Amino acid sequence: MNAPVNLNTLEVGFDVPAQPGMDAADIQTPALVLDLGALERNIKKMGDYAAAHGMRHRVHGKMHKSVDVAQLQVELGGACGVCCQKVSEAEVFARGGIKDVLVSNQVRDPAKIDRLARMPKLGARTICCVDDIDNVADLSAAAQKHGTTVECLVEIDCGAGRCGVTTTDSVVDIASAIDAAPGLKFAGIQAYQGAMQHMDSYEDRKAKIDIAIAMVCDAVDGLKAKGLECDIVGGGGTGSYYFESNSGVYNELQCGSYAFMDADYGRILDKDGNRIDRGEWENAFFILTQVMSHAKADKAIVDAGLKAQSVDSGLPVIFGRTDVEYVKCSDEHGVVADPDAVLKVGDKLHLVPGHCDPTANVHDWYVGVRDGKVETLWPISARGKAF
Amino acid sequence: MNAPVNLNTLEVGFDVPAQPGMDAADIQTPALVLDLGALERNIKKMGDYAAAHGMRHRVHGKMHKSVDVAQLQVELGGACGVCCQKVSEAEVFARGGIKDVLVSNQVRDPAKIDRLARMPKLGARTICCVDDIDNVADLSAAAQKHGTTVECLVEIDCGAGRCGVTTTDSVVDIASAIDAAPGLKFAGIQAYQGAMQHMDSYEDRKAKIDIAIAMVCDAVDGLKAKGLECDIVGGGGTGSYYFESNSGVYNELQCGSYAFMDADYGRILDKDGNRIDRGEWENAFFILTQVMSHAKADKAIVDAGLKAQSVDSGLPVIFGRTDVEYVKCSDEHGVVADPDAVLKVGDKLHLVPGHCDPTANVHDWYVGVRDGKVETLWPISARGKAF
Repeated sequence: MNAPVNLNTLEVGFDVPAQPGMDAADIQTPALVLDLGALERNIKKMGDYAAAHGMRHRVHGKMHKSVDVAQLQVELGGACGVCCQKVSEAEVFARGGIKDVLVSNQVRDPAKIDRLARMPKLGARTICCVDDIDNVADLSAAAQKHGTTVECLVEIDCGAGRCGVTTTDSVVDIASAIDAAPGLKFAGIQAYQGAMQHMDSYEDRKAKIDIAIAMVCDAVDGLKAKGLECDIVGGGGTGSYYFESNSGVYNELQCGSYAFMDADYGRILDKDGNRIDRGEWENAFFILTQVMSHAKADKAIVDAGLKAQSVDSGLPVIFGRTDVEYVKCSDEHGVVADPDAVLKVGDKLHLVPGHCDPTANVHDWYVGVRDGKVETLWPISARGKAF
Repeated sequence: MNAPVNLNTLEVGFDVPAQPGMDAADIQTPALVLDLGALERNIKKMGDYAAAHGMRHRVHGKMHKSVDVAQLQVELGGACGVCCQKVSEAEVFARGGIKDVLVSNQVRDPAKIDRLARMPKLGARTICCVDDIDNVADLSAAAQKHGTTVECLVEIDCGAGRCGVTTTDSVVDIASAIDAAPGLKFAGIQAYQGAMQHMDSYEDRKAKIDIAIAMVCDAVDGLKAKGLECDIVGGGGTGSYYFESNSGVYNELQCGSYAFMDADYGRILDKDGNRIDRGEWENAFFILTQVMSHAKADKAIVDAGLKAQSVDSGLPVIFGRTDVEYVKCSDEHGVVADPDAVLKVGDKLHLVPGHCDPTANVHDWYVGVRDGKVETLWPISARGKAF
């Protein structure tokens, strides 16, 4: 699973969509293509921003699920490590050499708790979230069993409506229990506002994050009153990182989508009313697809359907084109409206998928392209790691 | 890829969700679970139906993407072979021992045409669809290059609005070109009406398929007038197979979802107005998920989100429960409304996904369960084979 992959033993068009050195025009479709220049610029830009604002940046590995992308984010973007959502995913990053791994989620299943408690033996600082005091004893027992230390953040639900507690009293109770538990270390607060990231308006997003920041300030004060200091006050996504960075209370960002961009995120507006994919971030992530039927004059059928992407956040957008439009998605096909019949069979299009995370999760490889050539193939090393 | 998998070398909770012999209660979540009894009964029932109606049944492998399920459909359901949608997928089935493989789609990319023309060397009858006369010369050249025979169906668009021609003249022109081309064999017609399968009303579905049947009859007559006989007149899905079977012109069914069932298909009504998942077919396919947070009294958070399923055809339904409801899906979480707080952390639920095909495509394994025990693990052998 984590042994180096010998690309030479893999067949193009069966196992892999391309080989390094190949012309980008010869990539087998559908495939995920990364514009390496754009990716590097996005990573560097966010890294510089975090550094300039005195923030740690723990990149969200659940977005790309790739050890190679994470390593680039550490090397080029100064990331302190990764966060991810599943224990099996965290193991991939730890085995891949990432030294600081947060499971930004609850870990409750006994087998998963046991695996988490073994993770420090892979050489990674291991952190998870807790939103229920009943979880503390189980985590503590597993850490003691394996002779390791598991660090714990108390998760606050600051608006996403999923996991997390909602009162400072609950935060303090759980933090105190963690602090007292052998094998565990209280490490701070997890407070990611997941429900506002995709709101179009900057002011609407700010209003939501202001509520979150107030909750977090109150919790940090409550913890301090009990003598509990937060090493990590974490949160912040691509639609909010400037708010957390200027909050005076958060010290760690956890952005994911900024590195790739997608159509749904791209539509949100910055403080000047500009789409964030028109200046703030570049599109670095594409589904390369090909016209494979044009039997009707006004529609082209392409080879990227539901097996090549997730449409939960809307249909993909055809990059750089206004004359044709992806209008329908079925299992294996996309229907592209082509009113002027400008496309022909074999033409390739770059799609910007609606939602990058679940789209990456259906592919096995990223094809890294620069200057019209395939430069690298990166396995999507944690793809399918949902346990 | 196609070497036998040694399950003993795989780690439960990292590589695989379970091991054979394990209690079903210990399966790591989220995981795809097959109720083997229900699966076998569905497969046998459709096989018996096809046999009783003098129809071949070419099962749709793009639904399950599993050599093991396909083999069960051949052995228990009398299937003549499989159809699937991509060349890389077809190669998996051919390498896995399926002897008759139709790519029920257009193959236009030069590299894919070359691979297709090599497929007969894997021991499988190899068939593809054609909807453009310009494709014929390319397919012929590749078959001659490899010294093989590729059989070709002319695809009719009988309502789906994707690939396929729409006039008998076009069918006859393309069929004649195939018939004259060295290395190719004209094998008949592909006429799957994909757009009506999910219409709720039996009468609405019948009205659509009647149009398709009339188109197919006209095409078959047109071909006969030119001395071209159809070995295969194929189509028919889970929402229509009784229409094609009684049409007098179709001779091959290509059903997929009947074997697993899903929430979107389950809602359609049979001729007596009953849902097809309440008698006609059993739910055999589930996402097993687990409650991993219940920090708010009225909602449980489960561990199956967008990385464990596709929601293109709606949210999953919780099997056998009316007291709780899956109401929201994000990347890694499902929100389950639990108004009476009946669920607790660790409780497992069986979800019937909205759409089986793209849901299977995000997992690596089927866990086959019988009588509360894990009986088998089947790799989703063509998962991700989108080329």
